Amino acid sequence: MIQKLIANIKKTDAPIVVGLDPMLSYIPAPILKKAYGEFGETLEGAGEAVWQYNKRLIDATYDLIPAVKPQIAMYEQFGIPGLQAFVKTVNYAKEKGLVVIGDVKRGDIGSTSAAYADAHLGKVTVESNRIEAFGEDFATVNPYLGTDGIEPFLKVCREEDKGVFILVKTSNPSSGEFQDRIIDGRPLYEWIGEKVAAWGETCMDGEYSNVGAVVGATYPEMGKILRKIMPKSYILVPGYGAQGGKGADLVHFFNEDGLGAIVNSSRGIIAAYKQEKYASYGEEHFEDAARAAVLDMKADIASALRK
Amino acid sequence: MIQKLIANIKKTDAPIVVGLDPMLSYIPAPILKKAYGEFGETLEGAGEAVWQYNKRLIDATYDLIPAVKPQIAMYEQFGIPGLQAFVKTVNYAKEKGLVVIGDVKRGDIGSTSAAYADAHLGKVTVESNRIEAFGEDFATVNPYLGTDGIEPFLKVCREEDKGVFILVKTSNPSSGEFQDRIIDGRPLYEWIGEKVAAWGETCMDGEYSNVGAVVGATYPEMGKILRKIMPKSYILVPGYGAQGGKGADLVHFFNEDGLGAIVNSSRGIIAAYKQEKYASYGEEHFEDAARAAVLDMKADIASALRK
Repeated sequence: MIQKLIANIKKTDAPIVVGLDPMLSYIPAPILKKAYGEFGETLEGAGEAVWQYNKRLIDATYDLIPAVKPQIAMYEQFGIPGLQAFVKTVNYAKEKGLVVIGDVKRGDIGSTSAAYADAHLGKVTVESNRIEAFGEDFATVNPYLGTDGIEPFLKVCREEDKGVFILVKTSNPSSGEFQDRIIDGRPLYEWIGEKVAAWGETCMDGEYSNVGAVVGATYPEMGKILRKIMPKSYILVPGYGAQGGKGADLVHFFNEDGLGAIVNSSRGIIAAYKQEKYASYGEEHFEDAARAAVLDMKADIASALRK
Repeated sequence: MIQKLIANIKKTDAPIVVGLDPMLSYIPAPILKKAYGEFGETLEGAGEAVWQYNKRLIDATYDLIPAVKPQIAMYEQFGIPGLQAFVKTVNYAKEKGLVVIGDVKRGDIGSTSAAYADAHLGKVTVESNRIEAFGEDFATVNPYLGTDGIEPFLKVCREEDKGVFILVKTSNPSSGEFQDRIIDGRPLYEWIGEKVAAWGETCMDGEYSNVGAVVGATYPEMGKILRKIMPKSYILVPGYGAQGGKGADLVHFFNEDGLGAIVNSSRGIIAAYKQEKYASYGEEHFEDAARAAVLDMKADIASALRK
């Protein structure tokens, strides 16, 4: 699956993933009004608004980007109707040729991780049928429970040609509280990065592995070290834009082949029309603002990588 | 909310939680046949079978136990219909007076954790409505992202009188891979235990905190130390029974007041009829086997605590 992502990145010349993390406060009033008119101010109404918003964002950007990353929490908060919007979004993005990274941050003990892996990447067995539940291409995974919580995901990656991005160093301010603690002279995130490299060896797909890592754009110096520890792992880089990461910070996350990293932006793209820079689009053309923001992000990263 | 759990534990005299982790292989053939007859061998059929199985388990045990702990992965694997069975199970258990611990192991950066906290413990805002999505009483939470990923859960605990159990030392064989690594002379799980105690101080509910911890029955010596580090936190203890934890191992997880711990058993109860000991019940009376297994577990723990 990493080869499909790489092919999409090469085709679009954009190592960019758009985070589809819809908040109701981002969604333009006309979309909300229509959805509430049809389904009421309910979870169903919210789910419908989220789906219509996502659909227009995908339609306006799919030719420019290799992948989308829906954050499942933003759908789960609306219960079953929210998760129905998640499923519709995943399916529609795949129809448009996009790689879908489910930002689910699941992780549990063995048999339970196997259920999560089947849910998001594999298929579940119901008698003689093998059925896809959520059907993402990649999922993000939390490593705190160790190898036996990760192995069921790796098994599905091998069997179904899917991929994972394992949390190594997250983009948030307090990520260092545990992740940076020093063990035998090195921070915990480096030990996890080494495990990612080892797990990744069992899931190779060409010159890269289907096992990637999450490393925040907000920690570029750590990204530089982790890039070397996990040379064959793609790094999913959140934290660009709204969280403070800049194009110039990103260069160390890439390998010398120009590959090896994909940078996420969520709010900075999907709610671009709320920024002064893109305000002239207005909420009625929010998707055109998102398209402009993708082009600007692409130029920012390309410029940083050229230096 | 911890006071409601304590009241239920005192009423039943059983510090026990039944893990509702349904696998299709546990569900008796007649239930499967009926569900598939109605909905086909589909996700809908599987969801219906899971729900009917859970309902009979709850009906047969609710007067003996204080709480149930559905493991959401086992529902999520069946997609939307599986999660509909999860919601029905949560609601039905609450109707029966049980405390519901959603074993969801969520955890993310701030705004995303807030969405998970709203989804599982709080309410989501849709215009002027505040709506419950999943409605559990407690949720399990992964601490790897640090305080800013935990704080949104604490906020909801304070505002809605709900609770969390934070992963400290998990029951699985490879939990030590990262959790046991030594930082400044002490294992990572102790550092996290200290944080749990500190977070817990901000969410007190009587003499105990609404912030509890998960510590596996399979690591009783570590439980002994963690019990002292987090004196006001309830410990949710998985790993009893099928995973190898014994009654005698549990004593150190309790405080001297006889409170402070609640022990989970999943497969050992819900699929008891598959054990030789309870085989005479047969699959047609699987819920009576579950009831007998609850009574045996209660006696085993009571005997260990008396020593």
